[in-house]
Amino acid sequence: VASTGAIDEFDLIARVFRPLAADHPASLGLVDDAALIDPGAGNEIVVTTDSLSEGIHFRSEDAPEIVASRALGSNISDLAAMGAIPIGYTLALAAPKSTKMDWFEAFADGLGTEQVRYETGLIGGDTTSSSGGLMITITALGCVPAGCAVRRSTAQAGNDVWVTGTIGDAALGLDILQGRLKSRTRQDRDALIERFNRPTARIAAVPLLRRFATAAIDVSDGLAADLGHIGEVSTLIADIERDAIPLSEAAQRLAEQPGTGGRALLSRVISGGDDYEIVFTAPTEDRDAIDTHAADLNLRVSRIGTVSSPTEQRPAGNVRVLDDRGEALIIDGPGGYRHFQRGPGE
Amino acid sequence: VASTGAIDEFDLIARVFRPLAADHPASLGLVDDAALIDPGAGNEIVVTTDSLSEGIHFRSEDAPEIVASRALGSNISDLAAMGAIPIGYTLALAAPKSTKMDWFEAFADGLGTEQVRYETGLIGGDTTSSSGGLMITITALGCVPAGCAVRRSTAQAGNDVWVTGTIGDAALGLDILQGRLKSRTRQDRDALIERFNRPTARIAAVPLLRRFATAAIDVSDGLAADLGHIGEVSTLIADIERDAIPLSEAAQRLAEQPGTGGRALLSRVISGGDDYEIVFTAPTEDRDAIDTHAADLNLRVSRIGTVSSPTEQRPAGNVRVLDDRGEALIIDGPGGYRHFQRGPGE
Repeated sequence: VASTGAIDEFDLIARVFRPLAADHPASLGLVDDAALIDPGAGNEIVVTTDSLSEGIHFRSEDAPEIVASRALGSNISDLAAMGAIPIGYTLALAAPKSTKMDWFEAFADGLGTEQVRYETGLIGGDTTSSSGGLMITITALGCVPAGCAVRRSTAQAGNDVWVTGTIGDAALGLDILQGRLKSRTRQDRDALIERFNRPTARIAAVPLLRRFATAAIDVSDGLAADLGHIGEVSTLIADIERDAIPLSEAAQRLAEQPGTGGRALLSRVISGGDDYEIVFTAPTEDRDAIDTHAADLNLRVSRIGTVSSPTEQRPAGNVRVLDDRGEALIIDGPGGYRHFQRGPGE
Repeated sequence: VASTGAIDEFDLIARVFRPLAADHPASLGLVDDAALIDPGAGNEIVVTTDSLSEGIHFRSEDAPEIVASRALGSNISDLAAMGAIPIGYTLALAAPKSTKMDWFEAFADGLGTEQVRYETGLIGGDTTSSSGGLMITITALGCVPAGCAVRRSTAQAGNDVWVTGTIGDAALGLDILQGRLKSRTRQDRDALIERFNRPTARIAAVPLLRRFATAAIDVSDGLAADLGHIGEVSTLIADIERDAIPLSEAAQRLAEQPGTGGRALLSRVISGGDDYEIVFTAPTEDRDAIDTHAADLNLRVSRIGTVSSPTEQRPAGNVRVLDDRGEALIIDGPGGYRHFQRGPGE
């Protein structure tokens, strides 16, 4: 236990954070040394940790509610990608002594909104001072029936590649926020920025993933890079069809807007992170069943490509984006390098 | 995923941290989005999070191995106090860009030594840059048979108060380190400093706690304060006998050394934190059984006092230290205040 300086830690926990734990039996009211989780018979526990650092993952002027949404969302997304349902989360918060009670309250409000949405709750944590900026570490715990966890390393050659939702919105939203990109309409602008600020972890996809996915990962580093991670550990390569990549209406309009579309936008869409959609592989014979099951879940899924065995030219983890003539537009490599081949018409 | 600047994060994980996870099945080799724990039939999962911040919980010049020992030890200690055996831990490490690979390697070495000692392992984590100093957040997971977790809020009026090991060594070691206290012998000096630098979380006490303890907490804030925490949530007050508080031989010699002993040393012993011993309550009828069981475990335990119902003068959480005539030497209150009454002969 440590002090955050100006603000008493016990008071901060009691007033600001205990309400987030009030309804969660595992939290034991935050009065014990640790939280206590009943996993339920036949379940395994999934655990993931992610940190957000002021000045690196968020800006000092970002609204605390947005920081909270991104911090919790990125962790819940990791649970979803493993096929797990959230149980609870711990929060380690390091804050400079100058941090105002207002900031803590708004941050806790943001967590409160998000934890209701994900049907989870705070079960423990630690608050301390930081000699630098704010540092937020969340450890999220989820459960999955034993043997049903979805891994990265178990994709099979010949599997289809699928993705939930729409891709690239968060990256385009960040570009707009940072002035690198302009949208013609305020509505599109707001929609894209919202995707960056308030990601939706795809817990809704969990039943589908458990039933059909041979491997899965959430899109946090970018569609190509994350599919590459599956390829690396499953010893496969991937081909994505450009025209199958699902774009939101706002992204579509940007792609058609003179001066913003074309190869650069495509590159941004497939390399931009923070969408928190889930890319997964599944057997080809399950195509129709996946479409039906996704429709039942009211979940958008798109089949965007295939994985296959590596070749001498294309080692495991290599990812290509192909145009409608089967020409490689973009190649993303296992070592993290990326280059853009000149397309035939450019 | 984020970069630590000068050092490539993927390289850091692969070279330095993956070896710590190599033998732990739950880590999935650190290649997935999250760790996967099989709790075992009939078990509950205990989760605790603690952060250490450079400049607050440790000094920049502290050896990385010592920082690792204290970071892991404080978390494992929380598991032990709940009656849980360690399963694994996640590590969130935020480091300034100037941090050298040497530091990471020595820190990982320290974790490696400690995790062998506690029979646990790294199962996941996150590394990122810090705009301030180093920030280490560990989340430790343990397991306990369902219904056997030891809480803080379940002590009963009339219970004995027990403590493992010896009390005050870590605080005296810190005082020596910081030049506030001098020990006559190098051996005592080293022994006390070692207790501060390399705490031993009392996993060895877990079988005893599960069987006999009505409530428990680890001594991290200080014996009086931590026993006070039990009192607050169990709605009890506590009386400790000064002469029953177990001191190490080194602390005993300091107490007898002219100029360092007396009331000030006693006060330091009962208010100093970081011992990571466990204070617990148990029914009086189990006195002999506890002594026998502790001897079987090769564990030192001492009966130091009793808990009873609060009074008008002494609200829940109040803790007194009594001399051999039953006079209150020190009173530690529920609101965290502390004052020293003038003893009869002083």
